[in-house]
Amino acid sequence: MQRTPLLMSRLIERGARLAPDAEIVTATVNGTRRQDLRETLLRAHRLAHALRDAGVGVGDRVGVFMWNGSRHLEVYCALAGMGAVLLNLNVRLHGRDIAYIVNHAEPRLIVSDADLLVRLEPLADRLPTVEKVVVAVEEGGERWSTSLPDAVDYEDFIAPWSGRFEWPKVDETAPLGLCYTSGTTGHPKGVQYEHRSQYLHTMAMCMTDAMSLSATDTVCGVVPMFHVMGWGLPWAALTLGCKQVMPHRFTRPERLVRLIAEEGVTLAAGVPTVWQDVRAVCVDRPGAFDLSRLERIVSGGSAVPAALARWYWEALGVEMIQEWGMTETSPLVTFSRRVARPDGGRRVAAAPEAYLAEVAKAGQALPGVEVEIFDPDFNRLPHDGRATGDVLVRGPWVCSEYYRSPRPEQFHDDWLITGDVGCIDRRECLVISDRSKDLVRSGGEWISSVDLENHILSLDGVAQACVVAQPHPRWEQRPVALIVLDEGASVNRERVLTHCARRFAKWQLPDDVLVVDSIPLTSTGKMDKKTVRADLGAAGYRLPELR
Amino acid sequence: MQRTPLLMSRLIERGARLAPDAEIVTATVNGTRRQDLRETLLRAHRLAHALRDAGVGVGDRVGVFMWNGSRHLEVYCALAGMGAVLLNLNVRLHGRDIAYIVNHAEPRLIVSDADLLVRLEPLADRLPTVEKVVVAVEEGGERWSTSLPDAVDYEDFIAPWSGRFEWPKVDETAPLGLCYTSGTTGHPKGVQYEHRSQYLHTMAMCMTDAMSLSATDTVCGVVPMFHVMGWGLPWAALTLGCKQVMPHRFTRPERLVRLIAEEGVTLAAGVPTVWQDVRAVCVDRPGAFDLSRLERIVSGGSAVPAALARWYWEALGVEMIQEWGMTETSPLVTFSRRVARPDGGRRVAAAPEAYLAEVAKAGQALPGVEVEIFDPDFNRLPHDGRATGDVLVRGPWVCSEYYRSPRPEQFHDDWLITGDVGCIDRRECLVISDRSKDLVRSGGEWISSVDLENHILSLDGVAQACVVAQPHPRWEQRPVALIVLDEGASVNRERVLTHCARRFAKWQLPDDVLVVDSIPLTSTGKMDKKTVRADLGAAGYRLPELR
Repeated sequence: MQRTPLLMSRLIERGARLAPDAEIVTATVNGTRRQDLRETLLRAHRLAHALRDAGVGVGDRVGVFMWNGSRHLEVYCALAGMGAVLLNLNVRLHGRDIAYIVNHAEPRLIVSDADLLVRLEPLADRLPTVEKVVVAVEEGGERWSTSLPDAVDYEDFIAPWSGRFEWPKVDETAPLGLCYTSGTTGHPKGVQYEHRSQYLHTMAMCMTDAMSLSATDTVCGVVPMFHVMGWGLPWAALTLGCKQVMPHRFTRPERLVRLIAEEGVTLAAGVPTVWQDVRAVCVDRPGAFDLSRLERIVSGGSAVPAALARWYWEALGVEMIQEWGMTETSPLVTFSRRVARPDGGRRVAAAPEAYLAEVAKAGQALPGVEVEIFDPDFNRLPHDGRATGDVLVRGPWVCSEYYRSPRPEQFHDDWLITGDVGCIDRRECLVISDRSKDLVRSGGEWISSVDLENHILSLDGVAQACVVAQPHPRWEQRPVALIVLDEGASVNRERVLTHCARRFAKWQLPDDVLVVDSIPLTSTGKMDKKTVRADLGAAGYRLPELR
Repeated sequence: MQRTPLLMSRLIERGARLAPDAEIVTATVNGTRRQDLRETLLRAHRLAHALRDAGVGVGDRVGVFMWNGSRHLEVYCALAGMGAVLLNLNVRLHGRDIAYIVNHAEPRLIVSDADLLVRLEPLADRLPTVEKVVVAVEEGGERWSTSLPDAVDYEDFIAPWSGRFEWPKVDETAPLGLCYTSGTTGHPKGVQYEHRSQYLHTMAMCMTDAMSLSATDTVCGVVPMFHVMGWGLPWAALTLGCKQVMPHRFTRPERLVRLIAEEGVTLAAGVPTVWQDVRAVCVDRPGAFDLSRLERIVSGGSAVPAALARWYWEALGVEMIQEWGMTETSPLVTFSRRVARPDGGRRVAAAPEAYLAEVAKAGQALPGVEVEIFDPDFNRLPHDGRATGDVLVRGPWVCSEYYRSPRPEQFHDDWLITGDVGCIDRRECLVISDRSKDLVRSGGEWISSVDLENHILSLDGVAQACVVAQPHPRWEQRPVALIVLDEGASVNRERVLTHCARRFAKWQLPDDVLVVDSIPLTSTGKMDKKTVRADLGAAGYRLPELR
């Protein structure tokens, strides 16, 4: 057989050849801007020429500090094609962390959206390796100026160049991307993706049993492209030739719903909090948006609350697909099992109970990756849906060390220790109980904060729920629930506890229920339990029993 | 990233873990025999132990001379798992060719179905490397005895063994299978598949835009598992955990339709002649079979006649998907483009014209493989749907040489010269005009026998059509059409020519139309034009003008 290296340059051009007219739609201040896939790839080739001229070679890292948009996609293509390394910078990180990452990864050049310069400028003298900043201005954006070194407008940067860039044949294990995960303690840790790993990840994403992604889909990644390369969605959509809809910074729920409706999005992807916000908009303004073309929502980053999946199915006929993974795993490892679809289509059965039972689970591992649960001595636990242990994964798109800082303690043999805790059922479906650090340890037993949150969310009037551990002298820890109510709703402590008592044992019930205005989120849109716990501590919070 | 080798042993066990109860249904004399995937894999492990005990090691070739059935699938799994090489022997080949292949590939052991021993026995003294024959007896089969050396019953062979076989970690480029293509001239040529090539092929087959294969499918490969490893379908179905329905030797159309109906097959795969026969049965006995669960037919091996695709859509609501490939390409390279499915499902649009236009084409290359058309000097031709040239392919599951006989003349740089001639349209859809050897060269122009056949088949009453070249002193060659009529139909020469004149230029029309009882088929079920031409020659056929 031919020795064809598994390079992303072999995939990214395919969609543009098959569907040159497929649109990349970018949200702008005043509406949307469109360019087709043919143009996107042509511009990527010009960008690659410009980058090479600026000294970027094979293996060099280029920082990217951008919202989702067509230019960001061009940067993906140019860097993957030319064999340079896409350093995804999370624009929502604290400046301290951004400076740390840039100093750790040492990019020579950063491509930044103009409206994000204000976040980089205060760091100017702490980014010694950065020689040049390429500034992308979106339609309707202001004129820019900056104190950053050797700044050039993106359009001026690529303007002198034309013609095809001959993508080099690098080794298939050459680096493709670099993404940092925000550690709960210490510095961010870098994960370096390779061509081969992302190529295999992309092929798996295009499987029917993943998300049924097809050239006929219109895809909207609400997940930022700086989060683990947008969960790989931009790569898969480029490979198939999908229309892509990119929200840029305009992710307020109402704007997002309008974009999804107007562009006929069929598949959208993002964290559950996004879909909770979108639901709230739809509930507030029934009939205001035509979401009839939306078929599937891929939700990941944290568990899908069953009540949320039910609402989308019952109100909109939209299938929710849960995925699970992390920065260290490229990121997709499992997809919720997609049960029999008796209409012969990609949609789920009309009777949703079997589907809802499955979408509540993280699901089955994609072909080629393995998920196992282990006890503290690294003995494998049975797949019986009950035995719960540490979740470990391995496979061709799972990292084997951290960038420039191997951290062997996060690996066991050739397995990655994920930090999640869960069980695996008899159909090989993974069910995540919790992040190990978010479990509540009470009297030698474990209480899952995720299970409590999901149950509380099924109560009418509760918009968000967050359960955290609080210290207790006898039990070590006890759970406390924070809830955000729907507009006009009145749900009190007793109501929540009565509701929880229907399903949970007495010792598993929260000791307290606090109604709050909002739950702090991390830079990746997950509930920031570390901050919740810190805020409670700073406010001198004590469990009712201890007051 | 982890260095996980792309071994088929990583895929074949997945389905049995996810769906241990999924059935493997094998047709028998009296009905069907069922065993589940769990049992199938357990038996494969036992078989691997027995094979190792019989001296089969990593890299050793094992001949397989079997119909489609669960034991054949066990052989697939055992050999792939243990790193031995599956030598697919086409049971329909001439004894001379079988002996040649066995002597060329040198297997030490052959696994044969009992009812096929009669084909091997006459060759007994011409198979010097074969030390042992393992004989599989299907339920309802007779007791067997044989003159072949050291023959043992399959069940007795695996009976002493139990427990898991620890699949070895071989190199990902280690050989997996060996299949011989029946050359039009000279000896059969061997193509050796590797773990990596088949792994990538399997991942691509599971894509939505290939055939939307899913764990929810019930798959019936009518294509024999000795043809290019059953087009890879057994591997993909094992990976996903599909129910598989195996016709064994019972492929008469009526039996096949009943099997498909009774087992609720959702996806079936085979050559167009099979689907023409199945159509005939359905037309003969309207309403006799419930094919309501059948969704998709994957057709390959030769072009899908548009009339056939139309009938399946209009009569049964079944989508036909054309694939194109060959022994040298593992085999799948392209799938017909699957156009917008406005019901949001895997089925095509109710208005079938756009779909019918696409299914008539061989389609778009799967991600990672490339298809190009070249002129005789190996200049690339434009993709405009008109320019026609030699079809060349390359990619990670395309062969780079023939087994033990490289034949560099069949390659150009790193491209395989396929021997097919075609064009590529603006959406990158390949359209095969013909095998280069089946084109009719007339007065310096080329006439496509496939185009004529497809058009003739759209005439009511014509069941099969075969166009071949006949020698002509002035024009070099002229086309002659052979047709087989539906029962009771009366279509004559003039009717065919009038019909053809609606679409083809005068010089492209057949010089003659012969009504025949049947068209000879090759061992892979394609029309055997070599034999048709030889038969015409032997009968002293002359073109009308030359009589």
